[in-house]
Amino acid sequence: MPQLPSVLQSPLSPNVELLLDSAIPARMAWVDGDGHPRVVPIWFHWTGEKLAVATFKGAQKLDQIAAGQVVAVTIDSQTFPYRGLKIRGPVELVENDGLSPEYREAAVRYLGPNVADRWCESLAHLDQVTLLITPKWASASDMSDAPFLKETP
Amino acid sequence: MPQLPSVLQSPLSPNVELLLDSAIPARMAWVDGDGHPRVVPIWFHWTGEKLAVATFKGAQKLDQIAAGQVVAVTIDSQTFPYRGLKIRGPVELVENDGLSPEYREAAVRYLGPNVADRWCESLAHLDQVTLLITPKWASASDMSDAPFLKETP
Repeated sequence: MPQLPSVLQSPLSPNVELLLDSAIPARMAWVDGDGHPRVVPIWFHWTGEKLAVATFKGAQKLDQIAAGQVVAVTIDSQTFPYRGLKIRGPVELVENDGLSPEYREAAVRYLGPNVADRWCESLAHLDQVTLLITPKWASASDMSDAPFLKETP
Repeated sequence: MPQLPSVLQSPLSPNVELLLDSAIPARMAWVDGDGHPRVVPIWFHWTGEKLAVATFKGAQKLDQIAAGQVVAVTIDSQTFPYRGLKIRGPVELVENDGLSPEYREAAVRYLGPNVADRWCESLAHLDQVTLLITPKWASASDMSDAPFLKETP
């Protein structure tokens, strides 16, 4: 198994673990066929080794993202003091009959177990492709220890 | 003045106006010198015609983003039902002595007026570059009217 970037190696820092366990959507960027950037919010699931996201067969992004292509992801909190995790690496594409197993796991985190069941049931007739991102580079940040917050007027 | 994409023309929809007035960081993607995607969270300010973001002189992204280069942005809510706005377009780069005026305006939205003053004061010795994004394409979404939410068990 290739070595993970240091911030993703066990034991994870509380900051990184909180972000990977959070219900914050990842924002994933890639380069389209014209060489231009694209970015979308997307549910993720961290497997411990790879960042999994899923999309529906026929989605436009599948025409633009080939196996081995590098994508970039940020998972970051939206209120000050900001915390964040950035990951970049190549994708593997895994076709599923029905929903991606990692998407079902993600749904529980994002919606809670009861609504996740109903949500996935409503989509169970659709086929998904799982994008498995192998982190080649990662960086974490946490502004909660910024000197600014320690200043007194 | 070139025509804006329809979702950014006045009058804005409540969904788009809420997102542009929100304290949600934009997530901005671009293509680096190796042709790979990058993505970061970044404060934004909507001028009514352009999306302004700012970065500090010497920032790595300024080595990777040239005037006229296309960037992609998503501004989206992080809890279900999700609402979002995506914008793509070329950037102009404007050098400032000190902080970008648009950054100061954004700080008030993100931090509130009192902390924004102190925050900007703490950075006032630094020079920023403003990235002015001209929207050539934009799309808004709102899952709060999704059929799923109307379903009864």
